[in-house]
Amino acid sequence: MANNTALPLVILAEQFAKLPGIGMKSAQRLAYHVMSMTDGEVQAFADALINAHSTVKCCRECQNLTEGELCPICEDDLRDHGTICVVETPKDISAFERTNEYKGVYHVLHGLISPIDGITPDKIRIKELLSRIGKDNVNEVIMATNPTVEGEATAMYISKLLKPLGVKVTRLAFGLPIGGTLEYADEVTLFKALENRNEI
Amino acid sequence: MANNTALPLVILAEQFAKLPGIGMKSAQRLAYHVMSMTDGEVQAFADALINAHSTVKCCRECQNLTEGELCPICEDDLRDHGTICVVETPKDISAFERTNEYKGVYHVLHGLISPIDGITPDKIRIKELLSRIGKDNVNEVIMATNPTVEGEATAMYISKLLKPLGVKVTRLAFGLPIGGTLEYADEVTLFKALENRNEI
Repeated sequence: MANNTALPLVILAEQFAKLPGIGMKSAQRLAYHVMSMTDGEVQAFADALINAHSTVKCCRECQNLTEGELCPICEDDLRDHGTICVVETPKDISAFERTNEYKGVYHVLHGLISPIDGITPDKIRIKELLSRIGKDNVNEVIMATNPTVEGEATAMYISKLLKPLGVKVTRLAFGLPIGGTLEYADEVTLFKALENRNEI
Repeated sequence: MANNTALPLVILAEQFAKLPGIGMKSAQRLAYHVMSMTDGEVQAFADALINAHSTVKCCRECQNLTEGELCPICEDDLRDHGTICVVETPKDISAFERTNEYKGVYHVLHGLISPIDGITPDKIRIKELLSRIGKDNVNEVIMATNPTVEGEATAMYISKLLKPLGVKVTRLAFGLPIGGTLEYADEVTLFKALENRNEI
């Protein structure tokens, strides 16, 4: 922003620019937009920020973000507490819940192992997962990290820790996306689809 | 967001989604990002929102956003107060200031006449502009609204109000952008470039 702009506006734009995916131009536009909001709207926005950050914590069991000690999924006795789906972020839980098919519980790692970024296994919530295996009567752990280098490495690392404990460890299936076409499938996806083919 | 998400997070995402250009997916991502910020960072963000909104007001003269009664440009005696550049938004001032060429002052309309959206001439800061013409010794008013239907209409409307007052009213030049090519110029731009050709 040019130096003719009021300082509090510059400061606000810099705050917006710190958010992921928002560049300085968008941040400036958002700061100007805040000027056109009413006192009540701005207060509600500021309150929502402080309130979400101060009241939302990690679930004691699955590390999902929640207001209470336990998240609604871990509290739900109708869910299968013997099946744990291991995901990278709380967002991934929303994706699974939208399918309305999965009835087990989750475990959020809050990251993936990535030594190049300094994220060693002790930086993500692996020990919390291991402590659940002993406590609950866990039959199966589904590794649902993304099919990326870090996602695969993390899934491998955790499965090696879990197998000696006698737990069944599975991985999400990879193949052609439904509605996708062979023509546009990349080689790795197509190879996976071929490798994991099923009898019909 | 799925209903398994903590309510304060949903509320925060809804606040983000109210901002221009931020959809529900991005808003959700931003809300999750806030969770990973420190207490101090979140407080600084909330403070910047409240502070910018409560301390930044419109300049008494030119209606630009400023902290004081007068903006730094209107306060500056070295600027030519006899030339007023009329723009739609405070952002446009930053664009002109970046050229380092314009030495006059500004007037921010805070909108353009658009009857279809219910924006009649009395909804934007036209009367504030007219009151400046009498007070200061104004030689020239440069209409610098965007070359859109609303921008042109607003420029025309204001110029008709100003001409009887004996003020010179000018409009920004329209033509080929510098660095642009004839091949990619649209017809209207090319027509304007031809119409406003200059002797060399």
